[in-house]
Amino acid sequence: MTDPRFFHPQGPISLAALADLTGGEAVGPAGPEATFDNVAPLSLAGPRDVSFLDNARYKGALATSEAGLCLVAPAARTLAPEGMTLLLCDDPYRAYARVAQAFHPVPEPTPGIAHTASVAADAGIPDDCRIEPGAVGESGVEMGSRCVIGANAHVGAGVVLGDRVRIGAGAALACCLVGSDVIVHPGARLGQEGFGFAMGEGGHLKVPQLGRLRIEDAVEIGANTTIDRGTGNDTVIGAGSKIDNLVQIGHNVVLGRNCVIVSQVGIAGSARLEDHVAVGGQGGIAGHITIGTGARVAARAGVMRDVPAGATVGGFPAVPMKEFMRQNAILARMGRKGEDDG
Amino acid sequence: MTDPRFFHPQGPISLAALADLTGGEAVGPAGPEATFDNVAPLSLAGPRDVSFLDNARYKGALATSEAGLCLVAPAARTLAPEGMTLLLCDDPYRAYARVAQAFHPVPEPTPGIAHTASVAADAGIPDDCRIEPGAVGESGVEMGSRCVIGANAHVGAGVVLGDRVRIGAGAALACCLVGSDVIVHPGARLGQEGFGFAMGEGGHLKVPQLGRLRIEDAVEIGANTTIDRGTGNDTVIGAGSKIDNLVQIGHNVVLGRNCVIVSQVGIAGSARLEDHVAVGGQGGIAGHITIGTGARVAARAGVMRDVPAGATVGGFPAVPMKEFMRQNAILARMGRKGEDDG
Amino acid sequence: MTDPRFFHPQGPISLAALADLTGGEAVGPAGPEATFDNVAPLSLAGPRDVSFLDNARYKGALATSEAGLCLVAPAARTLAPEGMTLLLCDDPYRAYARVAQAFHPVPEPTPGIAHTASVAADAGIPDDCRIEPGAVGESGVEMGSRCVIGANAHVGAGVVLGDRVRIGAGAALACCLVGSDVIVHPGARLGQEGFGFAMGEGGHLKVPQLGRLRIEDAVEIGANTTIDRGTGNDTVIGAGSKIDNLVQIGHNVVLGRNCVIVSQVGIAGSARLEDHVAVGGQGGIAGHITIGTGARVAARAGVMRDVPAGATVGGFPAVPMKEFMRQNAILARMGRKGEDDG
Repeated sequence: MTDPRFFHPQGPISLAALADLTGGEAVGPAGPEATFDNVAPLSLAGPRDVSFLDNARYKGALATSEAGLCLVAPAARTLAPEGMTLLLCDDPYRAYARVAQAFHPVPEPTPGIAHTASVAADAGIPDDCRIEPGAVGESGVEMGSRCVIGANAHVGAGVVLGDRVRIGAGAALACCLVGSDVIVHPGARLGQEGFGFAMGEGGHLKVPQLGRLRIEDAVEIGANTTIDRGTGNDTVIGAGSKIDNLVQIGHNVVLGRNCVIVSQVGIAGSARLEDHVAVGGQGGIAGHITIGTGARVAARAGVMRDVPAGATVGGFPAVPMKEFMRQNAILARMGRKGEDDG
Repeated sequence: MTDPRFFHPQGPISLAALADLTGGEAVGPAGPEATFDNVAPLSLAGPRDVSFLDNARYKGALATSEAGLCLVAPAARTLAPEGMTLLLCDDPYRAYARVAQAFHPVPEPTPGIAHTASVAADAGIPDDCRIEPGAVGESGVEMGSRCVIGANAHVGAGVVLGDRVRIGAGAALACCLVGSDVIVHPGARLGQEGFGFAMGEGGHLKVPQLGRLRIEDAVEIGANTTIDRGTGNDTVIGAGSKIDNLVQIGHNVVLGRNCVIVSQVGIAGSARLEDHVAVGGQGGIAGHITIGTGARVAARAGVMRDVPAGATVGGFPAVPMKEFMRQNAILARMGRKGEDDG
Repeated sequence: MTDPRFFHPQGPISLAALADLTGGEAVGPAGPEATFDNVAPLSLAGPRDVSFLDNARYKGALATSEAGLCLVAPAARTLAPEGMTLLLCDDPYRAYARVAQAFHPVPEPTPGIAHTASVAADAGIPDDCRIEPGAVGESGVEMGSRCVIGANAHVGAGVVLGDRVRIGAGAALACCLVGSDVIVHPGARLGQEGFGFAMGEGGHLKVPQLGRLRIEDAVEIGANTTIDRGTGNDTVIGAGSKIDNLVQIGHNVVLGRNCVIVSQVGIAGSARLEDHVAVGGQGGIAGHITIGTGARVAARAGVMRDVPAGATVGGFPAVPMKEFMRQNAILARMGRKGEDDG
């Protein structure tokens, strides 16, 4: 069960509805009219909860789970305890996402502008938006329908938001054009001036940063992440891309669609990531290079050169993953060998 | 001396009281009734100040220091200038901590709710708490005694704080249960949704994040650090653990008691750190692994596998520290050798 | 052209004035009285725009550019399309910085204190300063002329700012002495307590952090960067130094003049960087070491020992750049060689 202080499940939902939602095949004692109240992890779930197994690491938890219903891959069916009703799904994690969303839909915002919020007279804010306490909307801001601007967030002059954009507490946006269904988590800093200086012995000269940050639809941006606006061209975050916490994205970077950028990654100025690129945690991408469609950059890799589409690279400087693993094996052997020698 | 703009020492304190506080043995000209006004580093201290030597690197500063009193280990006694009064302590840094706390106790907060703060009607906030300007406490918040919510901080719906919790300016908490004597520095983001998506070619499906973040007593969390709440199980920060600035802790991570996590570390989802684990700056811990009690992870290490209790590891992928140092020695030799070859 | 939602160029400016501003030599069809309206990147520039070529990577864009005027190095003159007017400059990027500043000067702040701001009665704030909505200035704050405190920023008790300091939205300053012409980007956390504990089995004892953070003139500090105040001595950021986003600088660090610290760098406590040191993105500097004047630390390098003035180092543990590159070449060969073997 979920903590009622924080979550308010919208059940019950019938097995028939859940099967419909997931495309899964129900097997076991429960009938289609049986209902469930919530989702829960295997170890905490009770008879009124729906759970799932996706990672074989947790099969022990399945064996002893008291979940009323479990989403599993057909091949994992035999791991479940006898008498548990199952929904057999090709992709149980994706199925779980749909089920959890059904029990916990994003709440509709209660519209209104808090009396401690500050909104410019010429800001275009539909009546169905919610502006929380202390939030600030500067001159010329335009919002779509049902946006939520979190407490003490700052939406700078001229910023444009699409529909259903949710800005977290204390986030700040400047010089941004934002699509619809974008989620910005607390403390993210979007569209501020990038790090642009003409370096010189006598002092570094500031280069005005005159581009924008364009964020396309369905992007999600993590807490305390920073994305600089362009210097002249724009910085662009492609539709559906998901960016974790504490990521740095420099000016003029272009991310394609559906990229996945894990926490603490740094992407230097003018790098280009094509569609479906994934970068693991703490990775780094040098400036002015291109990472091809579908390429994968391992956690903590530092990429200094272009990466072809579909490749997987690791290490620093990054090389094809197989080579990185071979390097590691050799180094590890060297490290251990010393024990005999010395 | 400390800058009177910022610090207000609560002296004088007698040598007898300081000896009592630290368990140290006083040697030198000053008598037990002699008093001191403040603490100061060796190079800045005058005759009314108490200083300390902990790191042999600074023994030159001791030799020329004008401190009235110095906390030193018995073995370092001979490094002090003639005529300086000393307090001989087994652990001078710990002794200094107690002395500095005595001169600079945490000030009692002046209670009250600033008129620009926003507090929900049903929030449970004792009269002895302090809610600073622009701070927001949402519906259902419960606080213990003498909490301080810093300027423009956000305490989300249902969050529970113990006694004497101090939340820094602009920090944000959601879905958190917080113990007593917890310090959260400015801009930390606690309990927001973790990075959970069911990835797919056609787009990444958001997985609702339905767990909590539980922070036990006496935890300290650095500026702009991010800690995500659990997905179903909770994220847990064990009692007495200290977390530095710009650290990322993913959903479902469990930290034991008295862990020390230095700045810019990243701990991926569902990792488990047992008690007394220390992770050096910029280190990384992969998801779903366990770091045993008392293990130490060197700065910039990237740990991909379980680490046994008590071990020290370094490098990426992390190996026992001795092996890492051997790898480095071999690599360094290779790098230098090339000079002759090429 | 720049987006009129966000930028308001102050043109037109004549070719004669631009030549004067940059010291460049005009060649081509346009006369000295010809005027231009704005700056733009090569690919977006039209006949009324000034552009520049600095990086040979973009020479293709120059060849097809429709810019009315282009700043180029004398040697790159032949890369320009026929009939384009050029300003030949020894350092086109620095020249561009001056031109872009001329079209886009920093706007003078509209003075005043927003009605949702909170300013202590004893704060010294000249009438020409601007305090944006939700910003907080605590007791004893002193500001110079024409400062801007961004929305929901927090300036702690006793903080001193010079002239023309700009603090971004949601930033927080405590125990800081700040020079003139300093820019602090949104969400930076300056002068909070550093990570100081006397570690111990029975719990970690907090060490009061009693120093200050001194920021000299013309420093720029990036979004969500954290700089801790000193423990006893001060943390110091030297004049003209530029610090990017998400950088961590520990207590007692001393940066010289005109240092350049790229994003996500971590500098551990008591490290000293002399003048003109540059540290690439995601680099790390260990505590208590010295990096000599003009030294360069490559991106992602981890420096564990003193670096002599003028040296360039890379890798982890960092070594002279040439050795690092040799190490990489050897490792890369090993990784590839395996393909034949295995």
